[in-house]
Amino acid sequence: MKDTYAYGELTELTETLLVTLYGYSPAEAKITAEVLVEADARNIPSHGVSRLDFYRGNLKGGFAKPRTEPEIVYETPSSLVVDGHDGVGPYIADFSVSRMLAKAEKQGSAFCSVRNSNHFGIAGFWAEKAAARDMIGLAFTNTRTCGIPTFGRERVLGTNPICAAIPCGSGIFMLDMATTTVAHGKVEVYDRRKKAMPSGWAVDDTGVVMHDATAFEKLFWANPQFGGHLYLGGEGEESGGHKGFGLGLLVELLCSGLSLGAASYDTFQTGKGSGITHFFGAIRMDLFGEASALKAHISGILDRIRNGAKAEGQDRIYIHGEKEAEARARALETGIILDEATCNMLESLCAEAGLTNR
Amino acid sequence: MKDTYAYGELTELTETLLVTLYGYSPAEAKITAEVLVEADARNIPSHGVSRLDFYRGNLKGGFAKPRTEPEIVYETPSSLVVDGHDGVGPYIADFSVSRMLAKAEKQGSAFCSVRNSNHFGIAGFWAEKAAARDMIGLAFTNTRTCGIPTFGRERVLGTNPICAAIPCGSGIFMLDMATTTVAHGKVEVYDRRKKAMPSGWAVDDTGVVMHDATAFEKLFWANPQFGGHLYLGGEGEESGGHKGFGLGLLVELLCSGLSLGAASYDTFQTGKGSGITHFFGAIRMDLFGEASALKAHISGILDRIRNGAKAEGQDRIYIHGEKEAEARARALETGIILDEATCNMLESLCAEAGLTNR
Repeated sequence: MKDTYAYGELTELTETLLVTLYGYSPAEAKITAEVLVEADARNIPSHGVSRLDFYRGNLKGGFAKPRTEPEIVYETPSSLVVDGHDGVGPYIADFSVSRMLAKAEKQGSAFCSVRNSNHFGIAGFWAEKAAARDMIGLAFTNTRTCGIPTFGRERVLGTNPICAAIPCGSGIFMLDMATTTVAHGKVEVYDRRKKAMPSGWAVDDTGVVMHDATAFEKLFWANPQFGGHLYLGGEGEESGGHKGFGLGLLVELLCSGLSLGAASYDTFQTGKGSGITHFFGAIRMDLFGEASALKAHISGILDRIRNGAKAEGQDRIYIHGEKEAEARARALETGIILDEATCNMLESLCAEAGLTNR
Repeated sequence: MKDTYAYGELTELTETLLVTLYGYSPAEAKITAEVLVEADARNIPSHGVSRLDFYRGNLKGGFAKPRTEPEIVYETPSSLVVDGHDGVGPYIADFSVSRMLAKAEKQGSAFCSVRNSNHFGIAGFWAEKAAARDMIGLAFTNTRTCGIPTFGRERVLGTNPICAAIPCGSGIFMLDMATTTVAHGKVEVYDRRKKAMPSGWAVDDTGVVMHDATAFEKLFWANPQFGGHLYLGGEGEESGGHKGFGLGLLVELLCSGLSLGAASYDTFQTGKGSGITHFFGAIRMDLFGEASALKAHISGILDRIRNGAKAEGQDRIYIHGEKEAEARARALETGIILDEATCNMLESLCAEAGLTNR
């Protein structure tokens, strides 16, 4: 079975499938394909074309409605609030971010909250659009619930990622992180390998830490309300779990709070759209002086950190975004390699659409 | 010995000591006393009047120079860059934040980077000045080095706190957190109690995790370069240590990067000022609609989280800032209780200044 795709080939195939099988408009399909394939190219397969399955489920569940235009419901010279009307996430995000960047060009900075959207792919894709224009880029989103507050046992918040992109001399400092300790995909890997989860990952339905990935997998899907992921720093306060929970809650208040949209605990309600909310920001570097001088100074800081003494047995300190940029360069050269499950899914979608896939 | 002070009494005493013994101007003394006593009132004694010792060391070391005026070195309608010229941290922060807030009132949002400053007290004190005006407030600072990057062993970054304040119906959501797992004061407590540190706190000079708080205390003060604190998420990548490191690095790039000031690894160099840098931001709530509606929505989200099911043995989920607000209310009623070491220090400063302290 075909498992390696050229970047352009995978993008085109994804686009075609989204139009023919999913009912996406050509514009919705184009931006969705781009953000999914970018994730695969960067070796973030959890957010790559494997998401086509999840996206189809959202269509069936009525959570996402293709061929829907987003609407600006409030705006000022440096801000906008967008209602996505349950449309396609990447299309809504693109609509929002492009308008926000135009405002930031004029005003120095601009911000945008979005309600009634859907999964927008990797947050970094949106934040780096600002960085490409010499701005600091911010992108946050809430998600389906999976996370447990410190001292709680009820799943009320999502993975609620934080993403910040800062342009530097060469490339971009790109922090793009779930505020939960790990995303659920990591649990699945530990389950398959029968490996014990460390303490800071998950709790059961009474709020007690779990180590058994297989048992947690079962509980997570059987019980929609209790037990779930811990936030960065893990259980309780001793190793800072309340800080990670605070970061997740901050993301919730920016996304849902500032859009009057659904909080994570109110997303994916039967009979409604998913209700996902986002928050974006862009701040021009030249608010603080000559952008080239600032970028050179930032590069110098990153070089010093990168070149710091390594722990025994380690030979590299990674700056955030480097691994992904290197993976992308490799993928453009030698192609994108997909895992077996994703290849099978593509195969069957192609068969359904009457396409050959070689 | 006197160990309980009324809020106003402790403020006045601190102010007097700063003028008579430290050579602060009355204005520098007033704002410094206020931010220190606020920390004690909120039960954050690590940033309270106990800091008078550290501040005096900074005077002796030439790191801070009282009676120095900060200077705006660059500005736009929605931003400013301030050079503190090695003056008094809280005075420089007050100068910067008040001007930034005036810009944000007019422009919708404003940002400020600061170089050549000094310790500014609790970050929350500055962020909440924005929240009090119905703005989202941000405050970040770098610090003396103490932290180790993921896969490193060299102390290159500081505790680099993140602080975000969001106004809500009643009170303020206030996240104010070191990006290191814990601040050094926590290690001192474990050392005194002969308690083992958990895995995610610290590494030795070869980059290996340490549990012995006493041994780490020794190493930390004996070796200025190698071994130190881990960032939120702890060692390596399995529990997200690279995320906490990324947050600390983000703070560094905002503070030092956008001010062209010293990075943490270049602070406190003999013969120079401390070189501490800050970054502040303020974003008006009404960029996103009617502020009162947004605050009510945010309050509703916080209520839902607060009222979520508790883990076994727990009876409360704390929203960030609640513990401190409650401690402050108690302190205003019954006074601020200081620990023995701080009382001794105050006693001896009073004796030196020829003040009675009863």
